[in-house]
Amino acid sequence: MTKGRLEAFTDGVLAIIITIMVLELKVPHGGSFEDLKSLLPIFLSYVLSFIYIAIYWNNHHHMMQTAKHVTGSILWANMHLLFWLSLVPFVTSWMGENHFTSASVFLYGIVLLGAAISYVLLQFLIIKSHGKESVLAKALGNDFKGKISPILYVIGIVASFFNVWISGIAFIGVAIIWLIPDRRIEKALKNEN
Amino acid sequence: MTKGRLEAFTDGVLAIIITIMVLELKVPHGGSFEDLKSLLPIFLSYVLSFIYIAIYWNNHHHMMQTAKHVTGSILWANMHLLFWLSLVPFVTSWMGENHFTSASVFLYGIVLLGAAISYVLLQFLIIKSHGKESVLAKALGNDFKGKISPILYVIGIVASFFNVWISGIAFIGVAIIWLIPDRRIEKALKNEN
Amino acid sequence: MTKGRLEAFTDGVLAIIITIMVLELKVPHGGSFEDLKSLLPIFLSYVLSFIYIAIYWNNHHHMMQTAKHVTGSILWANMHLLFWLSLVPFVTSWMGENHFTSASVFLYGIVLLGAAISYVLLQFLIIKSHGKESVLAKALGNDFKGKISPILYVIGIVASFFNVWISGIAFIGVAIIWLIPDRRIEKALKNEN
Amino acid sequence: MTKGRLEAFTDGVLAIIITIMVLELKVPHGGSFEDLKSLLPIFLSYVLSFIYIAIYWNNHHHMMQTAKHVTGSILWANMHLLFWLSLVPFVTSWMGENHFTSASVFLYGIVLLGAAISYVLLQFLIIKSHGKESVLAKALGNDFKGKISPILYVIGIVASFFNVWISGIAFIGVAIIWLIPDRRIEKALKNEN
Repeated sequence: MTKGRLEAFTDGVLAIIITIMVLELKVPHGGSFEDLKSLLPIFLSYVLSFIYIAIYWNNHHHMMQTAKHVTGSILWANMHLLFWLSLVPFVTSWMGENHFTSASVFLYGIVLLGAAISYVLLQFLIIKSHGKESVLAKALGNDFKGKISPILYVIGIVASFFNVWISGIAFIGVAIIWLIPDRRIEKALKNEN
Repeated sequence: MTKGRLEAFTDGVLAIIITIMVLELKVPHGGSFEDLKSLLPIFLSYVLSFIYIAIYWNNHHHMMQTAKHVTGSILWANMHLLFWLSLVPFVTSWMGENHFTSASVFLYGIVLLGAAISYVLLQFLIIKSHGKESVLAKALGNDFKGKISPILYVIGIVASFFNVWISGIAFIGVAIIWLIPDRRIEKALKNEN
Repeated sequence: MTKGRLEAFTDGVLAIIITIMVLELKVPHGGSFEDLKSLLPIFLSYVLSFIYIAIYWNNHHHMMQTAKHVTGSILWANMHLLFWLSLVPFVTSWMGENHFTSASVFLYGIVLLGAAISYVLLQFLIIKSHGKESVLAKALGNDFKGKISPILYVIGIVASFFNVWISGIAFIGVAIIWLIPDRRIEKALKNEN
Repeated sequence: MTKGRLEAFTDGVLAIIITIMVLELKVPHGGSFEDLKSLLPIFLSYVLSFIYIAIYWNNHHHMMQTAKHVTGSILWANMHLLFWLSLVPFVTSWMGENHFTSASVFLYGIVLLGAAISYVLLQFLIIKSHGKESVLAKALGNDFKGKISPILYVIGIVASFFNVWISGIAFIGVAIIWLIPDRRIEKALKNEN
């Protein structure tokens, strides 16, 4: 099976998720700067989620470049990832509109953790079907980023019951880790050719 | 005619349908777990419909891989399928928001049945234009899944007047049948090459 | 310039337009069949507009298959077409929600006419850049459908001031004309190869 | 890395942005022409923003045709551009719904300026990775349009505190400058081949 449509469908879903979130920035009735103030927490949540979706798209893009074929289970693992990501707009605006209550930060973390686990699962299936000597397997190495992220999510989720600031730092921390340039896959692909 | 744009357009529409449904999960005003409770039936409906759309995408993907060309009638049969699927977000949230009333479960079943029939029609037209010896015709074989699904839908639709639980079991049953791995087309494509 | 991205962008916009219209089918508060009744005019408008967008996608698909390259003016003519089509969801639901008032039927016709004219313009520019001996030019022939459509739209628009039923018949008439199979381009492409 | 998915994702996001804006044209309750009147400022904002997004798509399309490969930083610069453009629907409807108040025109200008700067950044990174002798570098020349636009945006932003008409003229002016046919890249690509 070719991977083209899996990529196209994923691109479509992520493009819609990333754009739909901005619809939750409901246009305020007044036309002064004062009227925008109440949107600030929603806007900040939007920025964080935008970065998360962008990271997922970026990583997905890199990962799929190493894949030569897809199997039925890869298709479903990909759908599973899209399911968790499709919940991001909901938890983003719930968190933003309620000014980061404990419950909303908790749920935001759960959805991020769900997406992270389903991404690892997808990655595992691709490596499994391509072999341990495949580009992706070599590129990942010990996969430090992939291992530290779930730990930070769990810290953020647990912390949400005590102090949502700690959760915020944990979630922003994961985003920063992934934003740091990481040429593992680019290098591995080059070595291959 | 090439099949590329038919696939791309279908991917686009399905990506939007699957993502738009989550917009019906309206963000509750309160920020506690208690406030989420009322969303549970909508969320469950969403999960079921997400799985359905994912199954359709998956099957469509497999089916189109066997197609070598498309005709005018295939284009319209595909549009017809998309029409029924475009109604899924509406019936999903009507059913969820009204906690599975008889009428809403009935309509949900009708839309699923409409989609199933239009899918069979599309499949028939592709086989017709490719011949009985084509990959798709061979892969389908006696097409057990394709034959049992409409029967289960009709059971679910009729049952909605008496007991919506039976309908629910019927509709979830169809989803489970299709989730069970099924390598008919993958195998047939391999044999071809 | 290659035509791939023009097709992809057009597919994206049309996929969104066709799917977004269904969002105007606002889920009614009650869960009985009675509660659906008031949605009937909106649903009928939706079906008509769905068919229109499907026709445009179909025709666009066929037309672009004959194109070998695109120019800057073709890109803009295409955007101009998308602009008119992007107004379809608005006029569709305005017409449906107000039960086909004179003004709403008038505006619906204007948008359809705008789309039709911009399509003819796009077609003209593609023929111009490919020459009178091009596949598209030959395929169109005297272009009966393309000539009768604007006339029917104008009849529908004018009639909206007296009797919206006549407008409805005119608009449905155009859709039927285009739904009748028409293999001009398919044939011309075959002759070419 | 191949550029296909970057183009596809960008096409998806821009297609959604351009179509989502029309959702802000909320269907009025009455069905007469009188009821449409209050939508006029929103409609005008929509037309302007539609043209802007169309220009960005057009320029992006041309620019990417000259690119032979993409790097990690190009992917992120592209995401940065999409972030600013994703805010366009919000500022468009805020400006339209509040009839061009000083604050809303100011914010509209800020978002346009942010998009323009991120576009220049993206262009810079593509040239950097392809070399000064690349097609894009040659095509841009002294890049008059790219240099005058930010100046006009800043004029529009500053003027919003005194007279929003001046801002309007500045913003419409930028759009007109870019609508004027400009064959630099088309020519440079031809010379290359």
